[in-house]
Amino acid sequence: MSLDGFVAGPDQSPDNPLGVGGRLLHEWMRSLAVWREEAGLDGGEVNASTAVLEEGDRNVGAVIMGRNMFGGGPGPWGDEPWRGWWGESPPFHRPVFVLTHHRRAPLMLAETTFTFVTDGIQVALELARAAAAGADVAIGGGAGVARQYLDAGLIDELEIHLVPVLLRGGVRLFDAGAEQPVTFVQMRAVEAPGVTHLAYSRSS
Amino acid sequence: MSLDGFVAGPDQSPDNPLGVGGRLLHEWMRSLAVWREEAGLDGGEVNASTAVLEEGDRNVGAVIMGRNMFGGGPGPWGDEPWRGWWGESPPFHRPVFVLTHHRRAPLMLAETTFTFVTDGIQVALELARAAAAGADVAIGGGAGVARQYLDAGLIDELEIHLVPVLLRGGVRLFDAGAEQPVTFVQMRAVEAPGVTHLAYSRSS
Repeated sequence: MSLDGFVAGPDQSPDNPLGVGGRLLHEWMRSLAVWREEAGLDGGEVNASTAVLEEGDRNVGAVIMGRNMFGGGPGPWGDEPWRGWWGESPPFHRPVFVLTHHRRAPLMLAETTFTFVTDGIQVALELARAAAAGADVAIGGGAGVARQYLDAGLIDELEIHLVPVLLRGGVRLFDAGAEQPVTFVQMRAVEAPGVTHLAYSRSS
Repeated sequence: MSLDGFVAGPDQSPDNPLGVGGRLLHEWMRSLAVWREEAGLDGGEVNASTAVLEEGDRNVGAVIMGRNMFGGGPGPWGDEPWRGWWGESPPFHRPVFVLTHHRRAPLMLAETTFTFVTDGIQVALELARAAAAGADVAIGGGAGVARQYLDAGLIDELEIHLVPVLLRGGVRLFDAGAEQPVTFVQMRAVEAPGVTHLAYSRSS
């Protein structure tokens, strides 16, 4: 998330799914050896972010994401790329549940199976919990999906990677609403090159 | 600032100048011995926030704030409290320059002199720089004043005290605009009870 609260920049499109300036949010990650190896690239750094990424991944048994994060399909961005943004070897290596309004059969790409769920966030969570078999379920994004789970009180822990940039527009992670204030317990703040890793848990 | 980017809650009024939930943003500070002593109260904690507050104060030679942060006067909140929110012994102990549209003579309260500036942010900055005599000028707030200086490229360093609460509405520190992304250099992130202290500098 940018300092001004955006998780993608303005003017998102199939050619620029992160929006204008959105790549600035991920630079800290792209510089890491652990990320570059996953992407089939050489080199990269080991720094304080490495342990945060590895720890965040460790106990995740299933992932939930929205259709735009999966990568298109019928909808505003047309029929392509119907196999997602993630190539033939997606980096998830575990069951992924994609919230969508369009039914389709599961898609297996290497070690990742994408299951498409048309019955809403509760059903997706039940399916993901079953698939995770006791491990954690991660809400991968985008912002709209994260907000739906947050508003439904279904988020136990919140991880934010705060990047020192003002995007000045785009997609906010948290939107204003009429609800009462929500308080979290701060679990940790880790300073790393170009990012601060924040983790919070639900206070009640 | 709240996790969702607000520095005051919704429905600000003379009785509740921080808006609904706004006090949640300052709880980390009110629990500190260093703050309580300044406010004439006993007790309080010493924790990782103490050094951050003391350090942030150390080299400040003058403060700039908006009229609402000073505390009213002619305007939407009526003529009171014309001597400000801060009581007869304000916590600044240095020259304060108040941006306002209403001319008035300077106000001395104990060790703090409030000078009212009607000629805009550039003039206020020049006056504050002269008064600071080589020390730093702090922009105290509120959000509107901070944004004006930020948009004018006049902020060298940014300090944000990020509190684990979603206010869901109120006054944002950073508003969306049409500008290009602005990148900062992350100087530090300090984890403390109920808050993370972030500091950034201008990258160019």
